[in-house]
Amino acid sequence: MRIEINETHDASLRSWVDSANSAQTDFPIQNLPACRFARKGAIGVGIAIGDFIVDLEAYFEIIGDAASEVTMGRALSSGTRKSLSRDLREGCNETRMKEMAGKALIPMSLCNFLSPYEIGDYTDFYCSIFHATNVGSMFRPDNPLLPNYKYIPIGYHGRASSIVMSGTPVVRPKGQNRSDADNPPVFIPCRNLDYEMEVGFFIAKGNELGTSVGLADAENHIAGLCLVNDWSARDIQSWEYQPLGPFLSKSFATTISPFVISLEALAPFRTAAFARAEDDPKPLPYLTDTENEKSGGFDIALDVLLVTEKMSKEKSEPILLSRSNLKDLYWTIAQMLTHHSSNGCNIRQGDLMATGTVSGPDKSERGCLLELTWRGTEPIELPNGETRRFLEDGDEVIMRGSCSKEGFKRIGFGDCRGVIHPAN
Amino acid sequence: MRIEINETHDASLRSWVDSANSAQTDFPIQNLPACRFARKGAIGVGIAIGDFIVDLEAYFEIIGDAASEVTMGRALSSGTRKSLSRDLREGCNETRMKEMAGKALIPMSLCNFLSPYEIGDYTDFYCSIFHATNVGSMFRPDNPLLPNYKYIPIGYHGRASSIVMSGTPVVRPKGQNRSDADNPPVFIPCRNLDYEMEVGFFIAKGNELGTSVGLADAENHIAGLCLVNDWSARDIQSWEYQPLGPFLSKSFATTISPFVISLEALAPFRTAAFARAEDDPKPLPYLTDTENEKSGGFDIALDVLLVTEKMSKEKSEPILLSRSNLKDLYWTIAQMLTHHSSNGCNIRQGDLMATGTVSGPDKSERGCLLELTWRGTEPIELPNGETRRFLEDGDEVIMRGSCSKEGFKRIGFGDCRGVIHPAN
Repeated sequence: MRIEINETHDASLRSWVDSANSAQTDFPIQNLPACRFARKGAIGVGIAIGDFIVDLEAYFEIIGDAASEVTMGRALSSGTRKSLSRDLREGCNETRMKEMAGKALIPMSLCNFLSPYEIGDYTDFYCSIFHATNVGSMFRPDNPLLPNYKYIPIGYHGRASSIVMSGTPVVRPKGQNRSDADNPPVFIPCRNLDYEMEVGFFIAKGNELGTSVGLADAENHIAGLCLVNDWSARDIQSWEYQPLGPFLSKSFATTISPFVISLEALAPFRTAAFARAEDDPKPLPYLTDTENEKSGGFDIALDVLLVTEKMSKEKSEPILLSRSNLKDLYWTIAQMLTHHSSNGCNIRQGDLMATGTVSGPDKSERGCLLELTWRGTEPIELPNGETRRFLEDGDEVIMRGSCSKEGFKRIGFGDCRGVIHPAN
Repeated sequence: MRIEINETHDASLRSWVDSANSAQTDFPIQNLPACRFARKGAIGVGIAIGDFIVDLEAYFEIIGDAASEVTMGRALSSGTRKSLSRDLREGCNETRMKEMAGKALIPMSLCNFLSPYEIGDYTDFYCSIFHATNVGSMFRPDNPLLPNYKYIPIGYHGRASSIVMSGTPVVRPKGQNRSDADNPPVFIPCRNLDYEMEVGFFIAKGNELGTSVGLADAENHIAGLCLVNDWSARDIQSWEYQPLGPFLSKSFATTISPFVISLEALAPFRTAAFARAEDDPKPLPYLTDTENEKSGGFDIALDVLLVTEKMSKEKSEPILLSRSNLKDLYWTIAQMLTHHSSNGCNIRQGDLMATGTVSGPDKSERGCLLELTWRGTEPIELPNGETRRFLEDGDEVIMRGSCSKEGFKRIGFGDCRGVIHPAN
């Protein structure tokens, strides 16, 4: 059963936290995403509101509900959401408001965010048919989309250890480069460094080894969504990836945004699953049901912005490289999770799964430089005269996600950022 | 610097633990591998000797050294090894012996073994050139060994959550099968279920993100070796693996043996790295040095045995399917680790890496059924009249590893076992 639209989504609600009412904020009172942060040597769990974090330990003390542990699960529950929605609302009880303002609000700028969960395993999918077709046509012009694509939510195991929080610098990796096919490979700093605009989802509830999670139950296992930058070293990738897939071209860093947007907050922005073409095969029975077809997708605009070192010195605004949308994925997140566990693989609480690069049908919707510059052959010209085939040292990539819909308050994901540092 | 052969390797040493002196034991006093086991609701760290485990917490109390925590690192240190070698030796101090026998020895048959480390990330390599060539020639007859193979220790990220201890039943996975290319795939129990005989190594010491581990330092980061059965669903694999590599064909289960054999115990059994052919390229500089070339390999015999359900009922002995040797790997474990971190990927304590299927040049040295039965086209005939193309329900696969050398005591790895249960 989907979480329905309820009083917490009411667009007319305003918060007594002023910054939560700004038109620009990602975190109005209708969003209330959860995060973890460093807190006097311990780990705090918080909820974002405007430019602040509500420290849930303090909050539960204030409302006299401090008995049980403050987990991400509790932070993202419908009960906590409803309670916070009422207590952060303009016009709520003044004593409560003052107590919260004095004891539970922490300015976001002072927070050192941690990964929302301890990530056991990280899985990266490849679920944008536009991305897969673009990339496929570069590497296999005669055979861009492989025959399994429309049957399988293609994915692979990623590296969990090198997942870092937004803001962590990314050191340009070194690796084997064989762009000169006439000579042996050389071990040099990556030349074709790229980002990939992805959306991640965290697992709230695992399944035992040997069991699987049915499609109708899949979303009950999902805590919520975040942004993922799956940094990619394209020159390393093209030389190493056969026959077992990407390895060192990905494992040097993956950046995530700190906030988990609950499926409840996203309820107004649901869409139908991808509209398959007439002659596309239907998904196999374990990967399809009416509810998934009707509302398995999410309308989330995904922006990639760039600030070069020169732009940063000139104090120029970031420029938009692409805007794609999660609703264009060929497979839904529920289908990804169900497929992942269909062989009996145990998924654990805290595991992270990501969608793969989210690209759309239009040129402006290509979620990585490989596609945008067509493997470097069509460099991007920036307003200040710089050009980019791939990322240069000092470049900062900023990813943003947001949901807008007539009659609802816009909600956002918070930035997912990273600056490239030179190779060691 | 390699750990040298020392007094703990002396072949004439005998233990007052009788079973450690048997010619068949994997665990003579020259081995002393470490393990973890469930212990009154906590986790114990132990050392195998004959048919017993020395509970190290009790041991350190007995020798008056109970101050610091009992970790795997401490269990595998040269100091602990030397101390245990003396205190388990025939002719040692009688009081000490009696105290140890009374307080520190636990029969192995009573132990519930746990994973030697909490495994953060699991990486699986593909370092047998014989395996890669055999498999390659089935899937790409015109192009069996890809051009990157002799430059890169090929590897991919594996699934950590589904790593299980020896003895855990393995449920036959379901998955998409497209063996009939004229029709859409079907979702059915795996038909071509296989094992892969591999050796694993655990990381004792990690490196920070953005740094790498040089070849000369690599073995200082390795705790020791164990056996790994990388169960593989070949029909699922061949349909799903392009372009991102194996995924659900592997993630349903990976079995490990419980004991970590230290590099010190293996010192007498070191060999030169693989002797590359004249016209093979030299490894790139970051993957080569004199010490690695001279002694980067290990002479470890690897046996795969099978007991079918029928054989089990008939009480027949397991039959030997293959015997390969770790020394035939094209890349050393030090090269695998150095390559893995060469892009700045952080490796963490407890991470597990495995070699990939260890096959040798001879037919009797093929480390999986895919190779042994040449993709099922040459079924194996068992002595009782049964045949096998791939594994059937009720089959038990037993893997064993051992080192023998003139002038040294034989040491073994302990069994890595698993029985196939029917699909759910």
